[in-house]
Amino acid sequence: MPQFTPPVRDTRFVLDRVIGLDRYTNLPHFQAATPDVVDAVLEEGGKFVAEVLFPINHSGDQQGCTRHPDGSVTTPDGFKEAYAQFVESGWCTLSAPPEFGGQGMPHIVATAFQEYMISANMAFAMYSGLAHGAISALLVKGSEAQKAKYVPKMVSGEWGGTMNLTEPQCGTDLGLIKTKAEPNADGSYSITGTKIFISSGEHDLTSNIIHLVLAKTPGAPDSTKGISLFVVPKFLVNDDGSLGERNAVTCGSIEHKMGIHGNSTCVMNYDGAKGWLVGEEMKGLAAMFIMMNAARLGVGLQGLGIAEVAMQNAVQYAGDRRQGRALTGPQEPNEKADTLFVHPDVRRMLMEAKAQIEGLRALCLWGALQVDMEHAAPTEEERQLAGDLIGLLTPVIKGVGTDIGYKVATDCQQVYGGHGYIAEWGMEQYVRDARIAMIYEGTNGVQAMDLVGRKLALNGGRAVQAFFRVVGEEIAAAKGNEKLAGFAEALEKALGHLQGATMWLAQNGFKNPNEVGAGAYPYMQLTGLVALGLMWLRMVKAASEALAQGAEDVAFLEAKLVTARFYAERFLPDASGLRRKIEAGSESVMALDPEMFRAA
Amino acid sequence: MPQFTPPVRDTRFVLDRVIGLDRYTNLPHFQAATPDVVDAVLEEGGKFVAEVLFPINHSGDQQGCTRHPDGSVTTPDGFKEAYAQFVESGWCTLSAPPEFGGQGMPHIVATAFQEYMISANMAFAMYSGLAHGAISALLVKGSEAQKAKYVPKMVSGEWGGTMNLTEPQCGTDLGLIKTKAEPNADGSYSITGTKIFISSGEHDLTSNIIHLVLAKTPGAPDSTKGISLFVVPKFLVNDDGSLGERNAVTCGSIEHKMGIHGNSTCVMNYDGAKGWLVGEEMKGLAAMFIMMNAARLGVGLQGLGIAEVAMQNAVQYAGDRRQGRALTGPQEPNEKADTLFVHPDVRRMLMEAKAQIEGLRALCLWGALQVDMEHAAPTEEERQLAGDLIGLLTPVIKGVGTDIGYKVATDCQQVYGGHGYIAEWGMEQYVRDARIAMIYEGTNGVQAMDLVGRKLALNGGRAVQAFFRVVGEEIAAAKGNEKLAGFAEALEKALGHLQGATMWLAQNGFKNPNEVGAGAYPYMQLTGLVALGLMWLRMVKAASEALAQGAEDVAFLEAKLVTARFYAERFLPDASGLRRKIEAGSESVMALDPEMFRAA
Repeated sequence: MPQFTPPVRDTRFVLDRVIGLDRYTNLPHFQAATPDVVDAVLEEGGKFVAEVLFPINHSGDQQGCTRHPDGSVTTPDGFKEAYAQFVESGWCTLSAPPEFGGQGMPHIVATAFQEYMISANMAFAMYSGLAHGAISALLVKGSEAQKAKYVPKMVSGEWGGTMNLTEPQCGTDLGLIKTKAEPNADGSYSITGTKIFISSGEHDLTSNIIHLVLAKTPGAPDSTKGISLFVVPKFLVNDDGSLGERNAVTCGSIEHKMGIHGNSTCVMNYDGAKGWLVGEEMKGLAAMFIMMNAARLGVGLQGLGIAEVAMQNAVQYAGDRRQGRALTGPQEPNEKADTLFVHPDVRRMLMEAKAQIEGLRALCLWGALQVDMEHAAPTEEERQLAGDLIGLLTPVIKGVGTDIGYKVATDCQQVYGGHGYIAEWGMEQYVRDARIAMIYEGTNGVQAMDLVGRKLALNGGRAVQAFFRVVGEEIAAAKGNEKLAGFAEALEKALGHLQGATMWLAQNGFKNPNEVGAGAYPYMQLTGLVALGLMWLRMVKAASEALAQGAEDVAFLEAKLVTARFYAERFLPDASGLRRKIEAGSESVMALDPEMFRAA
Repeated sequence: MPQFTPPVRDTRFVLDRVIGLDRYTNLPHFQAATPDVVDAVLEEGGKFVAEVLFPINHSGDQQGCTRHPDGSVTTPDGFKEAYAQFVESGWCTLSAPPEFGGQGMPHIVATAFQEYMISANMAFAMYSGLAHGAISALLVKGSEAQKAKYVPKMVSGEWGGTMNLTEPQCGTDLGLIKTKAEPNADGSYSITGTKIFISSGEHDLTSNIIHLVLAKTPGAPDSTKGISLFVVPKFLVNDDGSLGERNAVTCGSIEHKMGIHGNSTCVMNYDGAKGWLVGEEMKGLAAMFIMMNAARLGVGLQGLGIAEVAMQNAVQYAGDRRQGRALTGPQEPNEKADTLFVHPDVRRMLMEAKAQIEGLRALCLWGALQVDMEHAAPTEEERQLAGDLIGLLTPVIKGVGTDIGYKVATDCQQVYGGHGYIAEWGMEQYVRDARIAMIYEGTNGVQAMDLVGRKLALNGGRAVQAFFRVVGEEIAAAKGNEKLAGFAEALEKALGHLQGATMWLAQNGFKNPNEVGAGAYPYMQLTGLVALGLMWLRMVKAASEALAQGAEDVAFLEAKLVTARFYAERFLPDASGLRRKIEAGSESVMALDPEMFRAA
């Protein structure tokens, strides 16, 4: 059976030494995040997820959720009790605003906790994760009355929340939505239609579930411009906050999925369910994007969380399992065989995991900091820069982060050999769970298109120029420092390829937008390579400074330097190939008649 | 529900135009493989697997195998009937020697059929696939009496066969085997021990199962040098061929696996089971390698077979599913949306699938031809060259082929978006089934080590030099042909990187074998890149010649040229990065103390 220990030491390294939380006490909500409080969140929060959520992860996968004939859904054994503890102990409310009962912690601190929760039990984490997305949308677009009515109990965890976008005929292309919203005399709407793939759509964890639903009002255009957002509670909520009648929204079935079996992914049937418009009519897509951008960062974090727990187990197994001898001669001659750790190719997989996980952790936490800054930094210039950077890198964190999650989970399963394929060892669940993160909240291909088709060009390319400036300046500064120069030069080459590819896309995309589309995926990968490279440059700098200052955790800090070197040697060389793929353009990608894909 | 059509057109292209089966009629067993016969195998064999085996693939996955309290195992509904048809219609005996009841067809023809069978139902194909491995070992190492007793009924499919290597404490490192073989007075042995992960270990398809088992005789050294191979029938076989008493070998449990649920993967308990030595005592490993090398080629073919069926379905879905509009403007304005085919990033995934699948098909069939040549070519020089090439490339076909299978299955699942994650669409099964092929018959990391640690150096590097000579000569010839020169030049660069990396390994591996180990995986990938590149060069040549000769299937042949160009633009650029990773050496790979992989 697998194990999990929250990687507090590494989180602290990023928060304390790389980012330096104490530099941000000028942001109002960072004042609550004193070192003691952050310690408590990481230590106690980590302990909670490891002791309460992790033990029901594998059993939850094996058992799955059950839909009963009356449409009710029960979660796997132990989920209900664990959820009650989760709510009671306050882990649900970390970053929500105090005026709605939240603890008002910085997003970066909540993100650190959220990573641990995903590692411990991704399917479980989705129940509250989806509610957080719904809360965000209500906070930004909801009326004061709606906020007062729904948000406090969603923040507390008493009620759940969902996002209802997908229908059988439409996923990415929300213009094809068929769900109807007919206005009632009392100002409410009657919602009718079928939504699919609704995570946490129905379950037994909360007394109510607040659905946010995309639908079309009568006469609305048959495109994304005709979509409105509605709030549709499972139980209507009386003015005194008590629960009223059951709304006409039911779970029609639970999807049989490859993974995340502990989360109930539902077909939701709306049969004239009562709903209320959130924000303006036909502005639903913009509201949905608020949820979606937050959700995309959360999904990128799923890549990290799964990769981390998979690696921890592969490391344990590599130390326990004895098989063969080191190429350089027996390392433990008194044993019948050496451990897997002696084998360079096992090391390669673990080092690749480590280099990507630690880079991605720094990127996710830095990304969360940009979300904090975007909203609360003291100057407009800082807020704009943060917003530009996180807007640009949200699809990268989601797309590259989840690709890493799947690849690392697969490689860590590989370390187990045949045992990795057997359910009881738990590794194959990580692969199956990690797989969904590449698909939902916009497939990774959609992320790539968001990056090259939308984010690059926004405001005349302001965001990507800002990103290049940040990376370029840090490289330039690092080249003057002998401890950093080697890494900085490797990163500079990769940055050069990214800048070259960006120029190529800008020059060729106008003539033929397919050039942009054909290069989108390798461009996203190349951006991710540079973004993780920037994080590694910062980690090298932080570790070198700490070592120079006589920090105690010498072995840990020196391992950072080795891992950075590995990243430079084993990942950054991909940059030139990625650039060449982008600059190859779209001709051979688009040339074939669809019929020619049929070899038969 | 998924679909499958045997890719006969593409197989024929490779057999007829790229390889040219008619050039090999000087090999005795190729004389039976007349064009009519090959046509019949592809058409009728393809029809059989599509109509009989494919319909029970998804249901077999969902139902799995069942072990009963008495230790018997039933396969999923329909498997028993389909197996009976499989045996009756003669598809079981294609390449087995006529003296044992086989049809004596060339291995290349049987391989073409085997690919279709895997696409249709990989779990089912494993039942006869494992038996073929056991047959090979008996034919080479068994006594005449053993061959006469066991092989004919294994060839006919009346009896099954298995390979029993793995034990709980050992997989790759067979020196750790604990299973004991105690000699009996009658010349037989009593086999006692536990074997795990035994594919097709117990089932209801055949009246007997012939287990080949690795075990140690008393006093044998505690290493791979002490291993002997035994034949242990489930039912003892009387001298008249009838079945005798039940042997003391039982299925202790069925493993709960990530995929290939239709195949019974068993824990096998040997409790003093009666067995007979195959070949010489303590030479069991060599005998096992006969099975293993054949099996590794078969596993590489699993990568191809799964990739092919996954792609066929993704292509179908991409043509059916309408979502969004082409970047260049609506392609079908009368529809609400264009098909997925208009989106460059969907095309990218399908082109990557196509380029790898068609390259891999050519490589697998060419590899099978080398097996034929190795045994039957008229001159010693030809036999040696064929043996060298297939020896070198067996780990590449297995390792790179199965990596491709998993990657392509994953990408084709990705084309489906959320539907790809849902069991009923069938795509997630392909990913789960494809996954095992990277693990069994030696993990892909073990393949990489076999390539760099063993195959490169064998006979003073004769095989790799032969491979470089073949690739180099074909490039040189192609550069003089304007139709081929572009591709040849791209391949020449990749070959240069492979040669450079080979030189680097040769120069550095003596000093420190970890340099070889750390570079093994990227070296295997680079070799695969060049090997598939060679196949694409040949396909470009074959297609160009056919077009020049006025062949009728113009669109198909022109699609080959486009796909080759895509391969040159989108895969070959990886070569320089792979070389840089190899030449980075082992220092950063091996530097960390295992403790430093624990971030917690």
